[in-house]
Amino acid sequence: MSLPAGFTPDPERDLVLTREIDVPPAALWKAWTEPERVQQWFTPRPWTTPECEIDLRPGGIFRTVMRGPDGEEGDGTGCYLEIVPHERLVWTSAMSPGFRPNPPEDLAFTAIISIEAIDSGTRYTVVVMHSTVAGARQHEEMGFFDGWGAAIDQLVEHVKSSS
Amino acid sequence: MSLPAGFTPDPERDLVLTREIDVPPAALWKAWTEPERVQQWFTPRPWTTPECEIDLRPGGIFRTVMRGPDGEEGDGTGCYLEIVPHERLVWTSAMSPGFRPNPPEDLAFTAIISIEAIDSGTRYTVVVMHSTVAGARQHEEMGFFDGWGAAIDQLVEHVKSSS
Repeated sequence: MSLPAGFTPDPERDLVLTREIDVPPAALWKAWTEPERVQQWFTPRPWTTPECEIDLRPGGIFRTVMRGPDGEEGDGTGCYLEIVPHERLVWTSAMSPGFRPNPPEDLAFTAIISIEAIDSGTRYTVVVMHSTVAGARQHEEMGFFDGWGAAIDQLVEHVKSSS
Repeated sequence: MSLPAGFTPDPERDLVLTREIDVPPAALWKAWTEPERVQQWFTPRPWTTPECEIDLRPGGIFRTVMRGPDGEEGDGTGCYLEIVPHERLVWTSAMSPGFRPNPPEDLAFTAIISIEAIDSGTRYTVVVMHSTVAGARQHEEMGFFDGWGAAIDQLVEHVKSSS
């Protein structure tokens, strides 16, 4: 995995998803870093992503609006923390642009998106870190694996159909 | 001020301290980034800083232990977010090493330490950002300006006595 130096996921507080995908790292990177692409796969259907804002630098905004089938909306504003093109993207829901802390939130997380070139394409890994075990369990019970798993399916579908 | 591009302090949610100091930026940078130096000025007397841990890279630990005159201790673990040598140091109490969110906390803050060379030495600015106006007011009422002001006095005294 292309994880930060010295970092090992915490089995209690982190949720981890790994997939081997037969597309190149560069295509996955584009799908994660261009707003109009993120909008096409980020939110598990039938939800959609009508808005996405990206300022791809540490402290820059990563904002998405997710809309449900009945018109309900959720707005998430986070910021990027580390950007290693075609390798690793780290962002957090715990801070707004400029590294300003967001209001306290039990489910605040930092996500590491790791994209590693392998012979068959890409080893894609998502690590979602929480402050507490309770936060991780709550996120898991809310359907983390189904939701992020469905988003990966949509991500792969998007990359294959647009390449 | 040597603040991040496009950043303007928010008068409601940020606490700002500025001083012109007749020492060079490099000396202030050392005082902020070498643990044994931080221990000498960081905590307003009669409190002391018996421990300090620094891993000077984005996501690296910035940890201090502060000890009161009756032996009471407080431990703060944060991490660095942006490091521009001799210019700007950004760290947060809202995250632990590796960018892991810390447990929710109303007073979580991100601090920008700005060190700008001027003819007479350095323009030194501290911006402490909070998520909410209430958090900023609470921090102010806890004695932010007296405490951080006293620390600046000690910082200047340390730099002048050790140069």
